[in-house]
Amino acid sequence: MTSQDTGADGSGESPLGALTERAGRIQSAHRLLRRSRREQAGEFLAEGAQAVREAVDAERRTPGTVRELYLTAAAAGRNVGLVRAAYAAGIEVTEVTERAAAALSDTVHPQGLVARCTVPGVTAAEVLAAGPRLVAVLVDTNDPGNAGVVIRLADAAGADAVLFAGDAVDPYNPKAVRASTGSLFHLPVARVPDVVELLPLLSGAGLSVLATTGAATVDLDEAQDGGVLDLPTAWLFGSEAHGLPADLADGADERVAVPIYGRAESLNLATAAAVCLYASARAHRGRRGALSS
Amino acid sequence: MTSQDTGADGSGESPLGALTERAGRIQSAHRLLRRSRREQAGEFLAEGAQAVREAVDAERRTPGTVRELYLTAAAAGRNVGLVRAAYAAGIEVTEVTERAAAALSDTVHPQGLVARCTVPGVTAAEVLAAGPRLVAVLVDTNDPGNAGVVIRLADAAGADAVLFAGDAVDPYNPKAVRASTGSLFHLPVARVPDVVELLPLLSGAGLSVLATTGAATVDLDEAQDGGVLDLPTAWLFGSEAHGLPADLADGADERVAVPIYGRAESLNLATAAAVCLYASARAHRGRRGALSS
Repeated sequence: MTSQDTGADGSGESPLGALTERAGRIQSAHRLLRRSRREQAGEFLAEGAQAVREAVDAERRTPGTVRELYLTAAAAGRNVGLVRAAYAAGIEVTEVTERAAAALSDTVHPQGLVARCTVPGVTAAEVLAAGPRLVAVLVDTNDPGNAGVVIRLADAAGADAVLFAGDAVDPYNPKAVRASTGSLFHLPVARVPDVVELLPLLSGAGLSVLATTGAATVDLDEAQDGGVLDLPTAWLFGSEAHGLPADLADGADERVAVPIYGRAESLNLATAAAVCLYASARAHRGRRGALSS
Repeated sequence: MTSQDTGADGSGESPLGALTERAGRIQSAHRLLRRSRREQAGEFLAEGAQAVREAVDAERRTPGTVRELYLTAAAAGRNVGLVRAAYAAGIEVTEVTERAAAALSDTVHPQGLVARCTVPGVTAAEVLAAGPRLVAVLVDTNDPGNAGVVIRLADAAGADAVLFAGDAVDPYNPKAVRASTGSLFHLPVARVPDVVELLPLLSGAGLSVLATTGAATVDLDEAQDGGVLDLPTAWLFGSEAHGLPADLADGADERVAVPIYGRAESLNLATAAAVCLYASARAHRGRRGALSS
């Protein structure tokens, strides 16, 4: 507990020594709920036991991931092992009041523990230089929940990275962090703000670029059967509302549709991505699913 | 416009003849936002242009699906073709005020058109008597958004039905209706409130019962390669928080895990269901995906 956070009237610290919502560090961390502040500070908040556990694990692998862990007395009591692991990882642990914890959360029911984390500075070029075999690219995705679910899914499917291209939501948005259930700490996530750069970057890395679109040249079954998915692949997924920009879809190596066998008009973003990424995962493991003989 | 909805003081009808939120029919329809009232009345509300379009289509196939269509003057102006189709299908169309439309919506931005629909009275026994080859079963699912997304997904994957088992959310919940994007009108949805009845029902219909669970006997790739998915199949999906009840998983023909290739702990409900249902769809079309030779 640093004295600078305690106002002359004690307003930054409770009688028991916990930081209140008026403490400078809490007010500063609170501002990380806003994208502009996250981008300026290069930091974000990970809230809840699951996210914090993953952050602590990440700190062990990559020191500097977690700047500080804020937790209430009640949360400390509920998460004894986790607090011990945080101390063991050398993380600064700070007790805060319930109201301070609420100020660091965008949820109705704050869990009372929040890690202030460093945004990894990895660039798309660095990600692609590592020779990935499976990359998920979210283009113009504006729903943070969807973004987090796709990060979790990409992790599960063994993808090497997730790229956020164009006018996409911030992957470090609190809702995205929560929906990723820790996967944000498992695989590199990088941005390509200018979509014009996207295809050259991906193709330059030797990736076959597959655009998911209704106006497709091939359906996913045919792509699987034809060996299209055997190559190192970047999948482009558009926004739910507008799909992929036409020039991006046109510039991809293939335009692939998930087949619709019933009468649904389409799949939602996360379920379409699930079917595509798992088809690639299977193909990359020599199970591309040729017609059974 | 029936005169009974107009109070002596005109409170149920606007000066221009649109029903207001005080009209008896609007108040009665408003109560359908509650599950208890939906179950009592056997009716539900479908809001928004997409859902209403699907409801009107369903009315053409199955007269009696839509009891009444409520819409504001503004929505009528934006959806001329849809209103014409509703009239052509013989649906009673009623103009309502903006406030009345808001009273029939659970969203922040009501679209101004709402269909009052009949809950199809189909039972699980009837669904299963029709000889389905692919059935999705949601057990204890308590998130209406997830429920709707899985209905949409099941429709896309060509499933024959979706069953809601145990203590599951109401598929006619407004959020579920919205998330299903019309698929609720495309395939039969029925309930099995007592999970004890579930396995005998499914097995009795000749379905191979596959339980999705982390504690699996086989992973999905092995199931695909081994021909397990070639059979008519019922997939059991548990709740996000608790998974499947152990006795249900134990009683299934196989316990199947979607393989996790990365470091994610699990997939969320909708993405796991997407991978499983599409694997079945592929297997049922003779593309079960044996090891490529």
